[in-house]
Amino acid sequence: MTITGKQLIQGEWQAGKGASYQAVNPATGETLEPTINHADGSQVDAAVEGAAKAAPVYAATTLKQRGEFLQACADEIMALGDELLDRLKAETGYPQARVEGERGRTCNQLKLFANTIQSGEFLDARIDKAMPDRQPMPRADIRFYKQALGPVVVFGASNFPMAFSTAGGDTASALAAGCPVIVKGHNSHAGSAELVAQALQKAADKCQMPKGTFSYVTGPGKDVGAALVKAEQVKAVGFTGSHSGGMALYKLASERKNPIPVFAEMGSINPIVVLPEALKNSAQSIAEGFVGSLTLGVGQFCVNPGLVLGIEGDELDTFIDSTAKALADVNAGVMLNQGIAETYQSGRQKLSGQPGVKSVATGQPVKEGEKGFCGQAELFTVSASDFVKNPELQAENFGPSSLVIKCKNAEELNTVVSHLGGQLTGTLQATEGELKNYSELLSLLQDKVGRMVVNNFPTGVEVCDAMMHGGPSPASTDSRFTSVGTKAIDRFVRPICFQNYPHDLLPDALKNENPWGISRWINGERTNKAVEN
Amino acid sequence: MTITGKQLIQGEWQAGKGASYQAVNPATGETLEPTINHADGSQVDAAVEGAAKAAPVYAATTLKQRGEFLQACADEIMALGDELLDRLKAETGYPQARVEGERGRTCNQLKLFANTIQSGEFLDARIDKAMPDRQPMPRADIRFYKQALGPVVVFGASNFPMAFSTAGGDTASALAAGCPVIVKGHNSHAGSAELVAQALQKAADKCQMPKGTFSYVTGPGKDVGAALVKAEQVKAVGFTGSHSGGMALYKLASERKNPIPVFAEMGSINPIVVLPEALKNSAQSIAEGFVGSLTLGVGQFCVNPGLVLGIEGDELDTFIDSTAKALADVNAGVMLNQGIAETYQSGRQKLSGQPGVKSVATGQPVKEGEKGFCGQAELFTVSASDFVKNPELQAENFGPSSLVIKCKNAEELNTVVSHLGGQLTGTLQATEGELKNYSELLSLLQDKVGRMVVNNFPTGVEVCDAMMHGGPSPASTDSRFTSVGTKAIDRFVRPICFQNYPHDLLPDALKNENPWGISRWINGERTNKAVEN
Repeated sequence: MTITGKQLIQGEWQAGKGASYQAVNPATGETLEPTINHADGSQVDAAVEGAAKAAPVYAATTLKQRGEFLQACADEIMALGDELLDRLKAETGYPQARVEGERGRTCNQLKLFANTIQSGEFLDARIDKAMPDRQPMPRADIRFYKQALGPVVVFGASNFPMAFSTAGGDTASALAAGCPVIVKGHNSHAGSAELVAQALQKAADKCQMPKGTFSYVTGPGKDVGAALVKAEQVKAVGFTGSHSGGMALYKLASERKNPIPVFAEMGSINPIVVLPEALKNSAQSIAEGFVGSLTLGVGQFCVNPGLVLGIEGDELDTFIDSTAKALADVNAGVMLNQGIAETYQSGRQKLSGQPGVKSVATGQPVKEGEKGFCGQAELFTVSASDFVKNPELQAENFGPSSLVIKCKNAEELNTVVSHLGGQLTGTLQATEGELKNYSELLSLLQDKVGRMVVNNFPTGVEVCDAMMHGGPSPASTDSRFTSVGTKAIDRFVRPICFQNYPHDLLPDALKNENPWGISRWINGERTNKAVEN
Repeated sequence: MTITGKQLIQGEWQAGKGASYQAVNPATGETLEPTINHADGSQVDAAVEGAAKAAPVYAATTLKQRGEFLQACADEIMALGDELLDRLKAETGYPQARVEGERGRTCNQLKLFANTIQSGEFLDARIDKAMPDRQPMPRADIRFYKQALGPVVVFGASNFPMAFSTAGGDTASALAAGCPVIVKGHNSHAGSAELVAQALQKAADKCQMPKGTFSYVTGPGKDVGAALVKAEQVKAVGFTGSHSGGMALYKLASERKNPIPVFAEMGSINPIVVLPEALKNSAQSIAEGFVGSLTLGVGQFCVNPGLVLGIEGDELDTFIDSTAKALADVNAGVMLNQGIAETYQSGRQKLSGQPGVKSVATGQPVKEGEKGFCGQAELFTVSASDFVKNPELQAENFGPSSLVIKCKNAEELNTVVSHLGGQLTGTLQATEGELKNYSELLSLLQDKVGRMVVNNFPTGVEVCDAMMHGGPSPASTDSRFTSVGTKAIDRFVRPICFQNYPHDLLPDALKNENPWGISRWINGERTNKAVEN
């Protein structure tokens, strides 16, 4: 395959008619070939039209066909081989292990969705049989399941150039749901994203999916991104990125004549509570685990632990000392792009200027003459009373910095948790005894987060059936959905019911004989049996 | 019980400090005692604070306790006896049978939710067991379920003064989910609403639910309603009513610093497609069924059939003639309030002034000297080409009027369906043969609606497990949820997962031994067995 800088619209690659652009290697500052020609307004319209045309045809594919398509997507991505990995490294500054890992995760996600839809669980099939003799009125036969929402727009995330980009979790879950997808590619990795788009189109052709099942366009968010979100035939949006970016899309979507759902996962500061007994037992290993989590991928994760909550005392001091020691060895790493590195740097400066905030440790500084866009790790402290007064301290600083909040006692710890905004995760480093004694803290934290973590760290989000990756605002725009794991499909389906419908015309999932053998809720009972007459 | 005109805040009845108001009997125009004193801003704040305080305590009740509470709500409503029914009739103009029926439906809903939550289905429990030996990284134990969202504000609907008001479907489903509820009472039936609120408070006291589990306030939408939707501690909103009212709440909620979900069911025009063969076989009975559905409750239903789509020809003419005959016998009925009656009347005038629209039949006129707020039924026709040109013809005219669209052929029928906005229901009167021949029509209609109905009428929404009452915008603000039936609970819960959590501290629904015996999704299989170690 070759990177062409083109746009994938209605199943055909065509030269963009918009502005042009070149990706930059963040490790060297050099521009990367070729030039990408962005889509213009008419091409965005054409992509939307193609997706809308494909929608009913693609939605009508069987679960088996859709599963084969998702599997083929994974196969075609693997077939890109080293060309993909080399380009990913050049575009992101990520090392070989990371890009290999991310390719693996991306393909595993596609295969997981290919497999999970076969169970039919996401269809949520329900049948209430007719009661012709019911008094005072008969009841009609009513059958319910969830169908695809329609064309979905996916915005690639900068920090997961594969797993949350072109063929990432949003795309995989929307395709699994039966929705055509239009990916708005991310400038930072526009070359690797195009390669992946080529793989998906190849898979779509091989599996004879309708043209427009998958489309790929690039361009400025304010033009191309906004036009996609405002397009009448687009029915939902998936986004992973900054709070300002996510809220801008949410606003556009909610101001439409017919608003559509936007699931924006906007990251958070992911508090870790470190309790005294746990620190007494193992301050050093907790500190090392924390530093590992904080600096993994140069801190560029939605679940990066940007906040540590502890109770003043020797144990916390020891933890801070151990953290400082571990941090001192961490090299300044290449960040994803110039903008991210600069925003991180100014975030550190802003933090250190806040009332009561002290810098207590840093990682290795950026090397003199370094041409890459690097970020230096840093640890700050602040008192609980200063923290609760200052909402600025709850802003995410995307990168390897964290803030330790020193609480006077358990009560103040509860006060701090009460003041937190919504979070993707809340973590506790605690002994079993402490977890029992701090029940109010657990209850308060549970009210704020999508995932509770005990004696683990929040990074390394497992892609599985039981994962919840989302959380109350401002962590996401809708706490009722996850963007990671198989439940992510739920964002892109809607219920429909059929009353007094001729049996032959019902969707297979709702037919008496249960041809797919799925679990259904029939007359108030869960069963995978056929409907008895 | 006595109607006091007071507000229920933090479990106590107190005199409102806002403006005062008296309900009006729409059948006579007379005001009804007593004076209601609306809540002021400080009282709204107090109600929200009470709900927020109750939230964690109420969410922690067992399913059994919550079931008993919902059952007690139904019992206390029944214990209100004739006082409630008499007041309902006086406030709504509804006849005895309707208010009895609605009381029955309301209590049945409460009991249905009391019962259905015991299955634990809405908890959506999922368990992925730890894989300590997995390479390259171990997997932690991860468990997922859905917990209550927090305080929910419910806006009572005018047309269902019980079943979609104080203790209606929104309230019942939110309480079932474990969320405290603040009802903003509807002015049109403020007396009966207060009686029902008294019953709910009595049930809450008897069942020892925390103060603030249920609150009841009244006041102008722009003050009291807006303040409730904007309150930081409110986590979701349920609304049934007009498009403008629903969208105003949606806008307020989406403009919050931390947006919250609003489920607004805003009604629709519910197209009925009448196909030639079906009409040939039974034009008269279809016409009679249609007129019954159209004029039931003086047309004041969200699923009232405001649109009929047919193909020009003798069959359609016969149908229109039969409809006209049946309509001629229908008396002008008392509508819910003066505003609704006036809006309906101006809606009829507006319709008849639109290009190509002809009035072809009316019901009995409003009697001379009538003091009640009555509405006269009316049937209009328009050509398909005039219809698709004029978006005004898609506005809901709440009341017993309907518009027949005459299509030249099947193709034009498809064009009309393609031009429709989102609908709660889409109905077909058709033979089995026609349903097979009109597959494109069915597919187009299915894309627009929440419920497909064949050879039934849309009115008479069944409250059951398989009901979907909602639909694409503008029928509702989120097509992914229903407001009727047991799936309505899903609006008010959000997922949370627990990673590496001490077993003792897990919610009962996720404990190994499965103490509630619920169906769970464990390691990719559905089972109600315990987790094996």
